[in-house]
Amino acid sequence: MGDATNDPIAELIKNYNELNSSHITELDEEPSALEFMRFVARNTPFVVRGAAANWKATQTWSARFLEDHLADETVNVAVTPIGKADSPTLHDDGSLIFAKPWEEDQPFPTFLNYVIQQEKTQSSSLPSEVRYAQTQNDNLRHEYSSLFSHVQHDIPFARIALQHPSPDAINLWIGNSRSTTTLHKDNYENLYVQILGRKHFVLLPPHCQPCVNEKPLKPAQYHRAADGSGLELRLDEQGEDVPFATWDPDRPGEETTGYSGLAEPMRVTLEPGDMLYLPAMWYHKVSQSCSDEGICVAVNYWYDMDFSGPLYPLSTFVRSVNNSRNHR
Amino acid sequence: MGDATNDPIAELIKNYNELNSSHITELDEEPSALEFMRFVARNTPFVVRGAAANWKATQTWSARFLEDHLADETVNVAVTPIGKADSPTLHDDGSLIFAKPWEEDQPFPTFLNYVIQQEKTQSSSLPSEVRYAQTQNDNLRHEYSSLFSHVQHDIPFARIALQHPSPDAINLWIGNSRSTTTLHKDNYENLYVQILGRKHFVLLPPHCQPCVNEKPLKPAQYHRAADGSGLELRLDEQGEDVPFATWDPDRPGEETTGYSGLAEPMRVTLEPGDMLYLPAMWYHKVSQSCSDEGICVAVNYWYDMDFSGPLYPLSTFVRSVNNSRNHR
Repeated sequence: MGDATNDPIAELIKNYNELNSSHITELDEEPSALEFMRFVARNTPFVVRGAAANWKATQTWSARFLEDHLADETVNVAVTPIGKADSPTLHDDGSLIFAKPWEEDQPFPTFLNYVIQQEKTQSSSLPSEVRYAQTQNDNLRHEYSSLFSHVQHDIPFARIALQHPSPDAINLWIGNSRSTTTLHKDNYENLYVQILGRKHFVLLPPHCQPCVNEKPLKPAQYHRAADGSGLELRLDEQGEDVPFATWDPDRPGEETTGYSGLAEPMRVTLEPGDMLYLPAMWYHKVSQSCSDEGICVAVNYWYDMDFSGPLYPLSTFVRSVNNSRNHR
Repeated sequence: MGDATNDPIAELIKNYNELNSSHITELDEEPSALEFMRFVARNTPFVVRGAAANWKATQTWSARFLEDHLADETVNVAVTPIGKADSPTLHDDGSLIFAKPWEEDQPFPTFLNYVIQQEKTQSSSLPSEVRYAQTQNDNLRHEYSSLFSHVQHDIPFARIALQHPSPDAINLWIGNSRSTTTLHKDNYENLYVQILGRKHFVLLPPHCQPCVNEKPLKPAQYHRAADGSGLELRLDEQGEDVPFATWDPDRPGEETTGYSGLAEPMRVTLEPGDMLYLPAMWYHKVSQSCSDEGICVAVNYWYDMDFSGPLYPLSTFVRSVNNSRNHR
């Protein structure tokens, strides 16, 4: 399987690796629209160190500030037993299923203090549940709209280059180091800005689909038990299977395919004020470290990707070829 | 073979066709570097009508002008029996071979007047040989350097966008309607400018490799017979096979593959002063019509393509998958 001359998929991954660095490009100022468009054309990530260092959010937000500012707000919180929302999870019957978080509204101060307490005590005696404000539904212009004026309304170089007057969604993320976002991809051009704490990204280009061991998983969702105690995972018997990556680049020897070993993940850590360009369709796994206050806060801007041109159909092609090889 | 659900190649071509128009984008002024970069990112052609209308070449060149200007020059001429240089050709033994033109130096006035005479008489009684000045070796900055100041030294929007201080090559083409350039592709970003007469392009994106029936052809070259009379085709027994497209989008029912019928060729005719962006790796067939004077003159600018990013390895992947299907 590893012989490039006989195996187009192995040849593809090796060719790309030879022509592209697995080290991310670091900029120390925002690119122009034209410079950005060159990265879009190459579907290649970059990080701008300190791009948002002077944003009001970066300058003024703290746990105390957020608690005061949102003292009377109720927010949607994703709740999971161990901090993996939207993630392949071992079911009681031994099968791998796709577990979505339990979602519930909580008073913001309650949520925030839980996140901080859990992070700062680092105690395993705490209730085994992890909370993450991670609604990816344009929440910074809705649920958290009172904070919106503290960040840029858009990313000007992206607006100009991509010709979208406004991002499709702007999302706020608040959590602690217990939460991890499992390897997945989105059909968006993504500008990701760190405000408090740090985020650790592991990135793979779209053509690495054959490396990530995508499997059709039965959907399931956590539910809070009727007595309010724990979380139980319930299969959605009617739901359609969710095709999802099961390989974890941080556990590279598990759930492998014959191609996982060829992947050369790109890794980058965002410090407060840093901005990441995460190109459309790139796989990303995201973990986080907290600020001294025990929270991690980030904002991301989703811009619609361009489905015209060759990249989208060619990425679909890689997946189809890989699936047809697996099934023959 | 046509069922997309079972055939990733058919699915690829259909997906692309659904998401992209087969009609070329027409601009009436040159794009900015950023606007150009958006087309590069989508690997998608456009034509700028009248972009070079005010170039000195477009304003002043004529058959008479060129004859006077190059009266004492000797130029390299490609000579073929029927106007197909670098083209799959039926050999005496019935096999298809790759025929390169005979090349010889001719006084420019001799060459030019032959081209014009042949075009204007349209007589089949003329010697069956077609002449084309088509050296693609940066000839406008060397062989024809006295004409170079009559055209732009580069294409500014491409220089800025692609970050190449100078084109890799600038080529002058002089011929008549007997010459056709067979469907092929180049690893260059190409800006093609029509000066006199018209060029008719048929274009296919790189992922259409499975449509064009690429075959490994034995190389051959025309040679002028010792007595100076005709041309004879000689196989290059030592030469390596040349993989080359054998399907002609203008004869869509011949030399087909199972995918040729899915191709949706893009067609565009360049009038004098028009500029075509022919993206890297696009297949192109080029035929031409003459000005009233009986010649066709064009200039093209080759810029190095970017081999980083996903497009080059993915295009190679399509070819490898297609070849492995053909060989199993």
